[in-house]
Amino acid sequence: MMKLNDLALDAFLQAALEEDIGAGDVTTESCVPATARSCAVFIAKESGVVCGLEVAGRVFRLLDADVRFTPMLEDGEAVSAGAAIAEIEGPSRSILTGERTALNLLQHMSGVATRTAAAVSAVAGTSAKITDTRKITPGLRALLKYAVRCGGGSNHRMGLSDGVLIKDNHIKAAGGIRSAVEAARAACPHTLKIEVETETLEQVQEALECSADIIMLDNMTLDLMGQAVTLIGGRALTEASGNMGDKDLKAVADTGVDYISIGALTHTVRALDISLKFR
Amino acid sequence: MMKLNDLALDAFLQAALEEDIGAGDVTTESCVPATARSCAVFIAKESGVVCGLEVAGRVFRLLDADVRFTPMLEDGEAVSAGAAIAEIEGPSRSILTGERTALNLLQHMSGVATRTAAAVSAVAGTSAKITDTRKITPGLRALLKYAVRCGGGSNHRMGLSDGVLIKDNHIKAAGGIRSAVEAARAACPHTLKIEVETETLEQVQEALECSADIIMLDNMTLDLMGQAVTLIGGRALTEASGNMGDKDLKAVADTGVDYISIGALTHTVRALDISLKFR
Amino acid sequence: MMKLNDLALDAFLQAALEEDIGAGDVTTESCVPATARSCAVFIAKESGVVCGLEVAGRVFRLLDADVRFTPMLEDGEAVSAGAAIAEIEGPSRSILTGERTALNLLQHMSGVATRTAAAVSAVAGTSAKITDTRKITPGLRALLKYAVRCGGGSNHRMGLSDGVLIKDNHIKAAGGIRSAVEAARAACPHTLKIEVETETLEQVQEALECSADIIMLDNMTLDLMGQAVTLIGGRALTEASGNMGDKDLKAVADTGVDYISIGALTHTVRALDISLKFR
Amino acid sequence: MMKLNDLALDAFLQAALEEDIGAGDVTTESCVPATARSCAVFIAKESGVVCGLEVAGRVFRLLDADVRFTPMLEDGEAVSAGAAIAEIEGPSRSILTGERTALNLLQHMSGVATRTAAAVSAVAGTSAKITDTRKITPGLRALLKYAVRCGGGSNHRMGLSDGVLIKDNHIKAAGGIRSAVEAARAACPHTLKIEVETETLEQVQEALECSADIIMLDNMTLDLMGQAVTLIGGRALTEASGNMGDKDLKAVADTGVDYISIGALTHTVRALDISLKFR
Amino acid sequence: MMKLNDLALDAFLQAALEEDIGAGDVTTESCVPATARSCAVFIAKESGVVCGLEVAGRVFRLLDADVRFTPMLEDGEAVSAGAAIAEIEGPSRSILTGERTALNLLQHMSGVATRTAAAVSAVAGTSAKITDTRKITPGLRALLKYAVRCGGGSNHRMGLSDGVLIKDNHIKAAGGIRSAVEAARAACPHTLKIEVETETLEQVQEALECSADIIMLDNMTLDLMGQAVTLIGGRALTEASGNMGDKDLKAVADTGVDYISIGALTHTVRALDISLKFR
Amino acid sequence: MMKLNDLALDAFLQAALEEDIGAGDVTTESCVPATARSCAVFIAKESGVVCGLEVAGRVFRLLDADVRFTPMLEDGEAVSAGAAIAEIEGPSRSILTGERTALNLLQHMSGVATRTAAAVSAVAGTSAKITDTRKITPGLRALLKYAVRCGGGSNHRMGLSDGVLIKDNHIKAAGGIRSAVEAARAACPHTLKIEVETETLEQVQEALECSADIIMLDNMTLDLMGQAVTLIGGRALTEASGNMGDKDLKAVADTGVDYISIGALTHTVRALDISLKFR
Repeated sequence: MMKLNDLALDAFLQAALEEDIGAGDVTTESCVPATARSCAVFIAKESGVVCGLEVAGRVFRLLDADVRFTPMLEDGEAVSAGAAIAEIEGPSRSILTGERTALNLLQHMSGVATRTAAAVSAVAGTSAKITDTRKITPGLRALLKYAVRCGGGSNHRMGLSDGVLIKDNHIKAAGGIRSAVEAARAACPHTLKIEVETETLEQVQEALECSADIIMLDNMTLDLMGQAVTLIGGRALTEASGNMGDKDLKAVADTGVDYISIGALTHTVRALDISLKFR
Repeated sequence: MMKLNDLALDAFLQAALEEDIGAGDVTTESCVPATARSCAVFIAKESGVVCGLEVAGRVFRLLDADVRFTPMLEDGEAVSAGAAIAEIEGPSRSILTGERTALNLLQHMSGVATRTAAAVSAVAGTSAKITDTRKITPGLRALLKYAVRCGGGSNHRMGLSDGVLIKDNHIKAAGGIRSAVEAARAACPHTLKIEVETETLEQVQEALECSADIIMLDNMTLDLMGQAVTLIGGRALTEASGNMGDKDLKAVADTGVDYISIGALTHTVRALDISLKFR
Repeated sequence: MMKLNDLALDAFLQAALEEDIGAGDVTTESCVPATARSCAVFIAKESGVVCGLEVAGRVFRLLDADVRFTPMLEDGEAVSAGAAIAEIEGPSRSILTGERTALNLLQHMSGVATRTAAAVSAVAGTSAKITDTRKITPGLRALLKYAVRCGGGSNHRMGLSDGVLIKDNHIKAAGGIRSAVEAARAACPHTLKIEVETETLEQVQEALECSADIIMLDNMTLDLMGQAVTLIGGRALTEASGNMGDKDLKAVADTGVDYISIGALTHTVRALDISLKFR
Repeated sequence: MMKLNDLALDAFLQAALEEDIGAGDVTTESCVPATARSCAVFIAKESGVVCGLEVAGRVFRLLDADVRFTPMLEDGEAVSAGAAIAEIEGPSRSILTGERTALNLLQHMSGVATRTAAAVSAVAGTSAKITDTRKITPGLRALLKYAVRCGGGSNHRMGLSDGVLIKDNHIKAAGGIRSAVEAARAACPHTLKIEVETETLEQVQEALECSADIIMLDNMTLDLMGQAVTLIGGRALTEASGNMGDKDLKAVADTGVDYISIGALTHTVRALDISLKFR
Repeated sequence: MMKLNDLALDAFLQAALEEDIGAGDVTTESCVPATARSCAVFIAKESGVVCGLEVAGRVFRLLDADVRFTPMLEDGEAVSAGAAIAEIEGPSRSILTGERTALNLLQHMSGVATRTAAAVSAVAGTSAKITDTRKITPGLRALLKYAVRCGGGSNHRMGLSDGVLIKDNHIKAAGGIRSAVEAARAACPHTLKIEVETETLEQVQEALECSADIIMLDNMTLDLMGQAVTLIGGRALTEASGNMGDKDLKAVADTGVDYISIGALTHTVRALDISLKFR
Repeated sequence: MMKLNDLALDAFLQAALEEDIGAGDVTTESCVPATARSCAVFIAKESGVVCGLEVAGRVFRLLDADVRFTPMLEDGEAVSAGAAIAEIEGPSRSILTGERTALNLLQHMSGVATRTAAAVSAVAGTSAKITDTRKITPGLRALLKYAVRCGGGSNHRMGLSDGVLIKDNHIKAAGGIRSAVEAARAACPHTLKIEVETETLEQVQEALECSADIIMLDNMTLDLMGQAVTLIGGRALTEASGNMGDKDLKAVADTGVDYISIGALTHTVRALDISLKFR
């Protein structure tokens, strides 16, 4: 499982803390003695897949090196309702001030991992992989792509520069699939695969003829998708797409596609309910 | 309706574009001629409350001053499925490169505004106001608090420095409600109100006695909440809290509380389905 | 006493060091051997209230983890002329390079704390509190607001977002005190108090009638101020304002006002004379 | 007169606005209609030298391109009490939100220029120039050095990298004036002059013998200073230093020194009283 | 030809200007009147391929919107010694202050484009493409990769995230080529090709067997390289590598490789001699 | 030898790592186990002067505090082909991910130091010093100026603010050498020397008459340069300039000039060949 890019992460978390703390946590600083220490525990209030423990730990460490954060699970592990997922000990002020920032990330990332795991589970026994998209609110991309991996999913490209994805409007602007693919092959780094979005078998055929590396089957019926997979016959990777968050994933997988990309994994997230209990 | 803080917004959007574009939009730059121009329209694919049009326009303007973005609605207006919400005209490359960043924000903010509007509608005819919390993923706070206002909701404090909220752990650390409130009153700017979280009538009584400005009624039954409102009798503002996202909001409002704060408005968001269609 | 926001502080100090060091401390690097170590002591050359010791220590720590900075007083303590306030030991280069940046802050913050303490002392025996304003040069707000607290003063709002202060021009634009207060009450977070600036008893009366939380008595004679306090009768907090830096503070306090806000605490600062002596 | 470095200035002013505005100017946004426009005038409430008009104008322009700021004087010109120094017209909200940030800078910079002009005036008719030091709170250095120039003063080095200033502790560490000067001459860019701090005639003699470019006469009596100037006889520039803010500057100048450096010009500033009046 | 990422470019150029200007261009500001205007022309003092004209123009525009910069060629065009490549007109101060920053970039980028063009020319008539590497000093990557494209070359991956390149140490750590390729295929986004570095025919064979997309032929003799190309037989792209800057590129190309990657294109740059002449 | 400015350095290196790593080192993270550790050695593949060892060490330390980097030489020492210059031990992933960034800097800085040392060696036995210019690509100025010092050279001014250099266009704009020098003397900090560019003996004479501190002899023949040095007769420092990278430096030095400034030291750099070998 790939590691987060720590360098950018700390800057992001620092900004997150500043966004919340602003000119100071007036409540904590006035009510809680500077010398008070506390123990507390993060508890899952519903079952799911935990993600963001390393991130939550860094939040507190950035705030105060004197806080000890001890995860009891690793990112990507399943948790059941009522289970403790991490312990924290240190100055009460620092725990209280960092609590919301840490929980916001932990709950959101766990929500993504949990939904991804459900999708992965739905296609168990098939060869299809669940993958994400770029439908993610700004700033959170690296963290939520990581959460997708923790949930057992696979990442699609991280942004516009690490994959060529020729969509309908690119095709229109380039004057057809062939000219678009050839333009991309001539100008893009040769380290990137070329993916073409198709909606009909004719488009699939055209993409095949110019040796696209990946063919996206967008908004196709299950039947049409199956025919496309057969037509492609392993000559390109296949990716099912188009409101997959609302589809019967097992049925999609049974068409034989290699990847199912689901925007809802990251754009429609239900936070996993986690709370911090002081002892 | 309060304006966004434009200064911070541009920096945020610039970072959002850089996050997506990375080393360059290889597909668009290779397939689409630099001189091509397009017209396109943003269409709501389901009904809801639109929010983020100004933000979406700024995304394109930051990318290319030559793009004209013309909203057909204002933030906070209702839209029905199939309706156009904005038009865009300009260099095809710039429209394609900015599309995802603009849509990610527009769909997410509209999702928050739509959910808020539903909650506001649920308490129509009562005196209760719907308010948000700090349960928001980092970086998006100003935007989503704005979306809550666009949906007809009211904002709770923006962060830890613009409101005193004394929770159970602060009370424990301070040695009781009275000493916590007195410590806050002595040390915090006198421009801030003091809110106390309570779970029992005894706590409500204690908060009243030390003249708390706002009393949060946390995780109370409807019956208990009603008794608390009666006990308070207008001597402090009241705020219902505790998984309000899953509650019968009308019933909560009928207890007479002034505010109902709902974390799920911003932590569990369903993106409104919006797409960009080229003509 | 509230702690500084350490997160933002380090970035500020880093920038301060870069501003001074630029392309390098050419004198120190050429004249002083890299291995030389020194002991030195910060000495107050006049009496006052010390403030900024933690900040000065951080300046050196950011520059060189090998420097040991040992304060002999705490921020907010009185010092007499000739007394040592901190010792420093470490690489001579680092002490010399950081000296000016540390002293600039220490002297300026101590100057603010000293002036505040004098004002607090002037109203001793009354119930009035001394408070600051937003009349502070950019970048220094958090530090000087902290210095005011160290001098025994109380903070007014930190900026435009953590308090509602309706001034004459807001009243004019809103069409009167009542409509301004109602507009603020409808649109601002309910966690903020509403303060209204008044210059006449009629305005005080109007502010009272719409339940302003705080009434500022601006540029009033002592006599008028006393009448206003009597009229208000505890129904709102009162704040005396208007060139208070030049007034007889005891006389102002004797009118019975709750707060006296003094811009000169932070806009007209006389640095406390402190020097660094090498042994 | 040297121009400000505009590149860094905008970033500084943007940060200044963010520091004040925070999560939004809640008062103005709730009380003042978005479409309201105002005219207002900046008025000097006491006489002095104005400085910061260009800076104040940029503050408003950064906030809102629709504001027109029209200075009626140039930086460095004298103003008498009651005179208008600039007019402003535009959206009322933008004027109110930017007012404090603009005034804080304008009043502080004008305070520095005014004090500098008084010092320059005190030495009129002599050949001595008034110069500043590095005793300036962080972030403001470029602006206050500019204000010194506007007041008719001359700038000493901007920071540690654009001038060699060998002080007592450098001399001690290097093992004497000669070895310090030789070390500096060997290692520093040849574009920088070398200045040596001296307190006795023996030190002056030693500095002369190793061809120091500038000799600082630190904390000397007037009599000793005169002897030093005579001894030097034009072979090096001379600079009087040491609490010059409290000295009789004319008497110092009459010793024949070339420069008088005054820390108090920038470390002990009395803001010039300027207000913004709406029409 | 791909466009630069303008968003990041302006920040880079702003920093470049600040690095050079520091506390101000003291020479220009003191010697050149603020109102003086000049015309000047950029002249190539040797023949080559020009690159960086858009960048040079942006440098001046960032500094002063009043400067008009008119390129007479486009990036990527050949220029002969003595030819004018751009004209500039505007305030003399701005032209003088920006001159060095603009020239430093223009000369360096043109140097890279010129060397690339020479390499491309050397393999004319073969099917080999010239490509760059990641051997570029920090900060300049996007600009120099762009210069390579302007010289007719092709870009290898921009950084570590937009291409999988399995080198000898990765192979060692993974326990062989097969396990490395399989690990990469399982964990990396499916939008990236997988390249394997090989030094022997056995390694080439192993890479082929696990379907590597690109096979790097590293430090091979021409003879061995030819055998490798034959063995691969079009089943993977091939890339010649290893001190290619010192090799006979035509002979390398004649082995039939698809790409020749040359670190020296960007790590050993001879600036093209260009000067700015005032009229 | 002057130390680097560590404060700015870390920010630069952090950006360098982010530029290379982007969204993550996909190869290393997928192929190399998180727990694997390696030893490796940096080896010079050709002889030269090493520079950048401290910088290379910081690159790895920023990436991972668990990496131990042990230099076997100091910056500025000569190395012969095949010699080890540093060892590194730690997590294999961190070594592989940081390798390119560290090597890019180490090779480039060593290239500059090596070229500088050759120039210094060429003038051995004369009194001339080799100095650099501002002809350096953005971002690298502090590092390459440091490399010049490590190679035995001397630094010219770091940027536009720490030295006055009056060039032909300044002279033209000011209306002659005398008026330019007088304008600079009046307005620039007195800590800076004034240098004047000359091309003829008449200009040299004029510069002498107005007491320029440094006279640049630009593009002069050896004969003319010798005459100029004689004319100046020690009354100002002299600096030979103008394509000195292509000149016979010994012959130039023999004219008696004090400094020879060479743009090619930093604008035309041949990276020293260094590689990282895993054991």
